[in-house]
Amino acid sequence: MAARPAAGKLAPMHVTILGGGGFLGRKLAARLAAEARLSSLTLFDVAAPPAMEAPFPVRCLAGDVSDPAALAAAIPDGTGVVVHLAAVVSAAAEADYDLGQRVNLHGTLAVIERCRALPAPPRVVFTSSVASFGGGQDALLPDDSRQLPGNSYGAQKAAAELLLQDATRRGMLDAVSIRLPTVIIRPGRPNKAASSFVSAILREPLLGLETPLPVPEEFRVWVCSPRLAVEWLRHAMTMDTAPLGLDRGVNPPGISVSVAEMLAALSPAQRALVRHEPDAAVGAIVGGWPAAFTAERARHLGFAPQGGMDAILAGFLEDDLDATRAERAL
Amino acid sequence: MAARPAAGKLAPMHVTILGGGGFLGRKLAARLAAEARLSSLTLFDVAAPPAMEAPFPVRCLAGDVSDPAALAAAIPDGTGVVVHLAAVVSAAAEADYDLGQRVNLHGTLAVIERCRALPAPPRVVFTSSVASFGGGQDALLPDDSRQLPGNSYGAQKAAAELLLQDATRRGMLDAVSIRLPTVIIRPGRPNKAASSFVSAILREPLLGLETPLPVPEEFRVWVCSPRLAVEWLRHAMTMDTAPLGLDRGVNPPGISVSVAEMLAALSPAQRALVRHEPDAAVGAIVGGWPAAFTAERARHLGFAPQGGMDAILAGFLEDDLDATRAERAL
Repeated sequence: MAARPAAGKLAPMHVTILGGGGFLGRKLAARLAAEARLSSLTLFDVAAPPAMEAPFPVRCLAGDVSDPAALAAAIPDGTGVVVHLAAVVSAAAEADYDLGQRVNLHGTLAVIERCRALPAPPRVVFTSSVASFGGGQDALLPDDSRQLPGNSYGAQKAAAELLLQDATRRGMLDAVSIRLPTVIIRPGRPNKAASSFVSAILREPLLGLETPLPVPEEFRVWVCSPRLAVEWLRHAMTMDTAPLGLDRGVNPPGISVSVAEMLAALSPAQRALVRHEPDAAVGAIVGGWPAAFTAERARHLGFAPQGGMDAILAGFLEDDLDATRAERAL
Repeated sequence: MAARPAAGKLAPMHVTILGGGGFLGRKLAARLAAEARLSSLTLFDVAAPPAMEAPFPVRCLAGDVSDPAALAAAIPDGTGVVVHLAAVVSAAAEADYDLGQRVNLHGTLAVIERCRALPAPPRVVFTSSVASFGGGQDALLPDDSRQLPGNSYGAQKAAAELLLQDATRRGMLDAVSIRLPTVIIRPGRPNKAASSFVSAILREPLLGLETPLPVPEEFRVWVCSPRLAVEWLRHAMTMDTAPLGLDRGVNPPGISVSVAEMLAALSPAQRALVRHEPDAAVGAIVGGWPAAFTAERARHLGFAPQGGMDAILAGFLEDDLDATRAERAL
């Protein structure tokens, strides 16, 4: 048997992070390095993730997640946990259907194929998304809500969840699919996610920069901080999955906030940097996502609840403001 | 623009039935021949379907539904409707994961790829299944129930539905996914569906043959007749899909019957041919399927409601008893 972590505590095992070059993957890797319990770690992404300091060997590999040979290298025999963050984000998957299908759907199928070839079934922590649901602004989704996505990214994520759930039932792997809220405040630059503006309307003013707001101020979003997202991924790596039963999808306890409530966390001078520029294409995608969930099951399963906007802002100022300023030469 | 049928009436167009050699495909083809409105028909299956009489040209092709070249031949430019019945059934998909994935998932992906290459998006009528839901014996599922399948066949069907729904939203095709109940009384022989016994406990005694009953008599099943299944497929070929909106899955109005209610349709001498032989493997699969649905949306969409056991039995005696007796040389 490959090493399997007991709930809460990491065993000395190999872990692979697919999409390990992204901002959540790097933050999770840093957290695992600080825990100092793994025997080794692989970070895998389209471009090789940057080398990092850790008290165990770290391999940084480049490859396509839908390529079986690349995955065989990325997920060696004996891997205890695969954290599967590799994805083409919402607006990019909407703009390029083939790319989204290849990475978001066929990539996950390739992960399943690799995992079932391992000597023992690994834990697979998969990031699904609030975008896999419909419902829109008026929704307060209970935990047994169906996924009726209005965008290709969400459809690919929901289909991948079904296939991971079935692979789990068959004993090929042991999946936990976390439907992440919109993660704010993302460091770095705006990206191709339709929800990119939700971070930008806070991050850019904090950097002293103007930024467009494509939706009205009463628009509500289901959000979490990078700190909580990493906390949830880490919890899913070692939680007891027996209570999940057949249902491997988790709606974690984010918070529902309006744009106005987000902007209230800024100073008046910072708020003045946010320009109202309605964008129907962005509104059409994010307007379909549910603005709130009950998230009761996740709380019972030990997923920590998100604090308020103050905690989210403080986390960004402590963790990411300086690095973002340096990266963007501001 | 390729021919697109107006609601209710077939246009003179080409129609392709994938899985056209199966019993539902052949019954639908016979119905289309009787309507005498198509310009041509293709029947496609793993083995070439038998030739049939029709007032329009009928091609019978053999091929694998997951093979793009075979599908390009089966679905020519100008095809107005693709009826996608090709599937590996429940117990077979449970016994052979790779086969189920290839046909039920990758086959549907290949259908999407072929349809998006056509000059105009065709109607796609897809048979999904009650097996794509969980819930079990106590369930009465409303129309917005989520699909949490406890078997690979159901997971593959539910994932395929998501991908067809997204392809519809993108304008690649125009899908209607019908979650068929267990169809009784199937003609011919027992097959590899876990639900095969639901037909066998009626068909075999009507043929004067003994048959095993793997579940208790109080066990309830959501069923429809072959006549209604064909009626629903035919309705989906020409219905107005605008009222479906984003949600392309339909739970048609079957009926919930217990084994005891089914057996009550037989004579005492016929009932004596049914042997109680509990089968845990069969019970584990069909026991997870919901035994009843509200099916309100489908009624509003014009899907005809199933009659009672008398109608189901009468349909079999009129349509299929003699042919089954001849086929099996009884």
